[in-house]
Amino acid sequence: MAQFEQWTGFRGKLWKEEVNVRDFIQNNYTQYEGDESFLEDPTEATDKLWGELQKLQKEERAKGGVLDMETEVVSGLTAYGPGYINEEMKDLEQVVGLQTDKPLKRAFMPYGGIKMAEQACTTYGYTPSKELHDIFTKYHKTHNQGVFDIYTPEMKKARHNKIITGLPDTYGRGRIVGDYRRVALYGIDYLIQQKEADFVESERHGMKGTDFRLREEISDQIRALKGMKEMAAVYGFDISQPAKNAKEAVQWLYFGYLAAIKTQNGAAMSVGRISTFLDIYIQRDMEKGILTETQAQELIDHIVMKFRMVKFARIPSYNELFSGDPVWATLEMAGIGMDGRHMVTKNDYRFLHTLENMGPSPEPNLTVLYSSHLPENFKKYAAYISVKTSSIQYENDDVMRPVWGDDYSICCCVSATQTGKEIQFFGARANLAKCLLYAINGGIDVKTREQVGPAYRPITSEYLDYDEVMERYDAMMEWLSKLYVDTLNMIHYMHDKYYYEAAEMALIDTDVRRTFATGIAGFSHVVDSLSAIKYAKVKVIRDEDGIAVDYETEGDFPRYGNDDDRADEIAVWLLRTFMSKLKKCHTYRNSEPTTSILTITSNVVYGKATGSLPDGRKAGEPLAPGANPSYGAEKNGLLASLNSVAKLPYEQALDGISNTQTISPGALGHDDDERKNNLFHVLDGYFDQGAHHLNVNVFGTEKLIDAMEHPEKEEYANFTIRVSGYAVKFIDLTREQQLDVISRTCHDRM
Amino acid sequence: MAQFEQWTGFRGKLWKEEVNVRDFIQNNYTQYEGDESFLEDPTEATDKLWGELQKLQKEERAKGGVLDMETEVVSGLTAYGPGYINEEMKDLEQVVGLQTDKPLKRAFMPYGGIKMAEQACTTYGYTPSKELHDIFTKYHKTHNQGVFDIYTPEMKKARHNKIITGLPDTYGRGRIVGDYRRVALYGIDYLIQQKEADFVESERHGMKGTDFRLREEISDQIRALKGMKEMAAVYGFDISQPAKNAKEAVQWLYFGYLAAIKTQNGAAMSVGRISTFLDIYIQRDMEKGILTETQAQELIDHIVMKFRMVKFARIPSYNELFSGDPVWATLEMAGIGMDGRHMVTKNDYRFLHTLENMGPSPEPNLTVLYSSHLPENFKKYAAYISVKTSSIQYENDDVMRPVWGDDYSICCCVSATQTGKEIQFFGARANLAKCLLYAINGGIDVKTREQVGPAYRPITSEYLDYDEVMERYDAMMEWLSKLYVDTLNMIHYMHDKYYYEAAEMALIDTDVRRTFATGIAGFSHVVDSLSAIKYAKVKVIRDEDGIAVDYETEGDFPRYGNDDDRADEIAVWLLRTFMSKLKKCHTYRNSEPTTSILTITSNVVYGKATGSLPDGRKAGEPLAPGANPSYGAEKNGLLASLNSVAKLPYEQALDGISNTQTISPGALGHDDDERKNNLFHVLDGYFDQGAHHLNVNVFGTEKLIDAMEHPEKEEYANFTIRVSGYAVKFIDLTREQQLDVISRTCHDRM
Repeated sequence: MAQFEQWTGFRGKLWKEEVNVRDFIQNNYTQYEGDESFLEDPTEATDKLWGELQKLQKEERAKGGVLDMETEVVSGLTAYGPGYINEEMKDLEQVVGLQTDKPLKRAFMPYGGIKMAEQACTTYGYTPSKELHDIFTKYHKTHNQGVFDIYTPEMKKARHNKIITGLPDTYGRGRIVGDYRRVALYGIDYLIQQKEADFVESERHGMKGTDFRLREEISDQIRALKGMKEMAAVYGFDISQPAKNAKEAVQWLYFGYLAAIKTQNGAAMSVGRISTFLDIYIQRDMEKGILTETQAQELIDHIVMKFRMVKFARIPSYNELFSGDPVWATLEMAGIGMDGRHMVTKNDYRFLHTLENMGPSPEPNLTVLYSSHLPENFKKYAAYISVKTSSIQYENDDVMRPVWGDDYSICCCVSATQTGKEIQFFGARANLAKCLLYAINGGIDVKTREQVGPAYRPITSEYLDYDEVMERYDAMMEWLSKLYVDTLNMIHYMHDKYYYEAAEMALIDTDVRRTFATGIAGFSHVVDSLSAIKYAKVKVIRDEDGIAVDYETEGDFPRYGNDDDRADEIAVWLLRTFMSKLKKCHTYRNSEPTTSILTITSNVVYGKATGSLPDGRKAGEPLAPGANPSYGAEKNGLLASLNSVAKLPYEQALDGISNTQTISPGALGHDDDERKNNLFHVLDGYFDQGAHHLNVNVFGTEKLIDAMEHPEKEEYANFTIRVSGYAVKFIDLTREQQLDVISRTCHDRM
Repeated sequence: MAQFEQWTGFRGKLWKEEVNVRDFIQNNYTQYEGDESFLEDPTEATDKLWGELQKLQKEERAKGGVLDMETEVVSGLTAYGPGYINEEMKDLEQVVGLQTDKPLKRAFMPYGGIKMAEQACTTYGYTPSKELHDIFTKYHKTHNQGVFDIYTPEMKKARHNKIITGLPDTYGRGRIVGDYRRVALYGIDYLIQQKEADFVESERHGMKGTDFRLREEISDQIRALKGMKEMAAVYGFDISQPAKNAKEAVQWLYFGYLAAIKTQNGAAMSVGRISTFLDIYIQRDMEKGILTETQAQELIDHIVMKFRMVKFARIPSYNELFSGDPVWATLEMAGIGMDGRHMVTKNDYRFLHTLENMGPSPEPNLTVLYSSHLPENFKKYAAYISVKTSSIQYENDDVMRPVWGDDYSICCCVSATQTGKEIQFFGARANLAKCLLYAINGGIDVKTREQVGPAYRPITSEYLDYDEVMERYDAMMEWLSKLYVDTLNMIHYMHDKYYYEAAEMALIDTDVRRTFATGIAGFSHVVDSLSAIKYAKVKVIRDEDGIAVDYETEGDFPRYGNDDDRADEIAVWLLRTFMSKLKKCHTYRNSEPTTSILTITSNVVYGKATGSLPDGRKAGEPLAPGANPSYGAEKNGLLASLNSVAKLPYEQALDGISNTQTISPGALGHDDDERKNNLFHVLDGYFDQGAHHLNVNVFGTEKLIDAMEHPEKEEYANFTIRVSGYAVKFIDLTREQQLDVISRTCHDRM
């Protein structure tokens, strides 16, 4: 059993015998049931640093979205000397460490794909290094090259036609949350020892390729841990030992995260469930009398400031999918323990309070693990922050806890993984709406006229017959799910080979559980289209080639989003059917297939590539985001809409069911007090039905329109909204996406 | 079916429907039964160029063995512009192409291991590039690093204690012979098409990791083929189409080989079975009247000159194992076809004649595929060349043909692989003599006193009991064979990952057969030791720790090498037993385990690490090389010795059974004519018994002693001898190895 003097005062045993942060938390956290009155305002240092950062952010926007870019140095743990928000104010920073040598400067990360790294540079007027080009073309293959080396023509065609889309073959897969808390609790040396022991354990009789891969991975992880020590040393810290106080705990933990974002540019680089953990250190220091609330808030403000600074160099096609420069530095609060105790601590307030101390911000992606059993004071405060900032999201701890326990982290937008025990193989999305059109047209893509799917018999009748459509759709989904999984298997094989996440995996158990996270796009449109075919009459408009290009629907039909079982049952059927087909496929490294109904901002791009649908949506129009009902479909108010989404069984979509709703302030109440009370009751009701997720926006359409027309107004500089799965500064969206957001349902009544 | 105008006059069909050089040869070669009288002397161009090269070789020796080294450029297909033996004489070169930009300059090849590449530089006073160091440590892992990342402590210990030894973990594995003839026969474009078709074929249902690996390999092969075209273009040649005449055929084929030696520094980089193939082009040109015998010989002299120039940068520990700078540019002649026709062509004479036109040389490693059914004229001429130059070796085509067919190449010293259809995973050697000592001492290494093997019960009796020793030895061999295979599995996994032979594999069938080529060291000493224990009385001398350190043998016992079945049966038992244990192990990529009894010059190093043995060999003394009887054991003359070795069943040692014999000229006859006649009769007798291999040296010990004492004498500059598995310039051996060669049995009687 390990013993460190830094652990004095901490209770529990198991976490000393093995790496087990959850056990440490359960033995040591202090519940808090009070209200927000204890919170403190920002310190002068926070104001100064945040002021500096805002100046830099403004400058960044003025320069077209990128402040500075590296072109000569390949990012790595020890690629740079120390960097600060402002060199002259560096003593003010309670938490230090930048991705590069300067704030908001984007690193050069070629391992995912040298072409993309270079394109990111040239897009913003930077000239990438010739020498690095040579290294990553002549000597070191990149992930992207590896994948395209082995794709089949069918995969390339499906990808090009965007029926499988957003694939992590041109960017890092992300969605791996290192257990950054381990750095603070154990110190690096202990973690190295444990990994060395795992290396010994990995020695098995009759070892073969998969064993060799694992042994090499452990070896690379140990190398990364040693690199983290060097990285911290650059800033004058020795993280070989456990953190001895709250300040060190915050700093050590951040160094763990910094190691991740210096070595990987995954789409989602989440922070994880750190709030309760850090509260334990703060609480101990306060009890010792060596830390004040003001100092505690300053530590949290400063680490949050760092999370607000995370940047990656991206290419235009990426930005189209994931608009507004998100990094998904997702960070969780609250939740309930397996023993029934709520896990709300003062620190959860402190994290939410950063949105007041430093104003609204899309990052970190603050996520409340919700349950109606959380203390009412906390529920109210969270609701209050939603009303004020529209910056946070809610996920149902009551449905996630039975699956993932009480120490899971959200690894992207909404997807849970057991912290330090599990990773995701991220898989973007299959466009099931396009798949429906392929079923009707016998595999031919309406837009490109290519034979993309198998040349099954097309539907030739004038009016669509429900049974015939369902039979054809089933066969086409079978093809699509297999192709989709085969494609992802290649991607993850090559990612492991050329862009393995050694630093993150070093902070995760060697015997890791892996989910294979697929996704669905076009969900609501398929549901409404099938409903139209079933309950109304859908006439097919064909062009001269006999290709179905549009539909005329006669009569009314039930739509998803109105609490009408006729439509909602189709929704459940669709999810179950796709999931069952995925389960029939072998998935890389024996991972467990899951799926999500979650599109991020990519619904606009996906919609552009999708033809007209029987539900009335015209070719090229955006798809509804995530699991949201289609625009204009919701006729019965917010609660009916929520009820429809809540019917989707979470166990069939363990990767998450994202729902984004906007409520006009007037509909919620006359003042913020009434609004917060109404909002948490809405949340209680929604989540008690077993719904998974809700993005809450509280504003009216008129504010969006004004912000679109007058982005220069000071009040809109940090105006943040929730989109499918993350938050974004509204003015950072493209006009096309702004228009899409504006066109979405804004509920004026409950 | 492909058709090229370059094929006009060639017969056959199958080879036009698929890549099948063997079928082309069988349909087109012209047997030759005449004598050597048609051969021509070197041209003036040959004399001039060879003169230049000899000057450079002299300079190289004067500079300590290395003429020049690259430190700034990583070797690759297109890393250099054109290079010539002498820029001013470049028009004289009938065959062009150098590994680097200058003759005998050694390339920088870091993929096998950056440390080794750098050590090779510093050993000879060159300073390796800092920049390349960074690239191959920071960005690109090398094979060596990969292997050492995953070795188990047991493997490291076994390796350090040299019971498993000479492993290809610090150098390229080699032993892969691309079918370089394909470049000439088909041209690169056709080969690319075929590989593209294979890529399509590799698309299987439910693809997984091994499928992805294969697809990436094919993709890398296609890239390499394109690179070869660029490489040839640098010299002004377009090799996209088939060669249209003999000169092009020789040049195209050489470009294929050049691609291999520019991208790989395997221990053995063999040329393969090219003689008969090239003869077909020469014959066609002669029949057309566009080529004379003088010109034909010049082409062969010039390509051979190129093979004599192949160099790699090596480290001292490598040179200790493989002395005298060998590259195993092995090249075969003769053999019998499956249809019973001998395959001797005039070209086989031309290749042997290069040893007269340009004097003896260790490279290319000229190998006669022998059968008593070969035309007598050819057998006599080969024997004559042996008598004159001691530069060639003989392998028994009659035992190899049933296993490998009639188009195999020797891929190293003596090991056959089907050309273009098969590769070897080279595995160096297990020291079975050391293993016997481990069996006696319960796994403790006499030299290091480490517990290397498993801590089985040691033998504690004063006199060794045969049955007890055999039981312990069996158990220890079981451990060793498993550990050995496990270690090799790791090595080949990493070699494929970090140092894949794309250029060579591009000229080999995608559906390749793989053998897993293990090896035995210390063979004769184990046999004689076990014989001593069985037939005499062996007393164990133990030190104060109870470790058996020496043996006193009372009474006489039969020794291997005297045609005495009592000893020879132990030899057969040992081979069968070790092979059966290897077969119990899973081998990488489902390769077929084979073994060899072949030590190269490493017998000296292996001997240094091996303690005293019951056969009377003292600690540190060299082991007998390959399958040779021990020094001094042979008491009954050459034929009895050959008879003993011939008893070893080839099917149990498909990787080869190497036998090196030195016959004093006097014992062979009074003049060269008598000698050549006697020698070919000896060969007939030996090989008709089913023996596998013979290195033939014809000189007396006094010549060796004189050469050792007076290396400066002009007559010794190119004095070449056969050692276990290759030929070497005697003066390039270390004094230690020279003494070892001198101490070997020189047969003064038949």
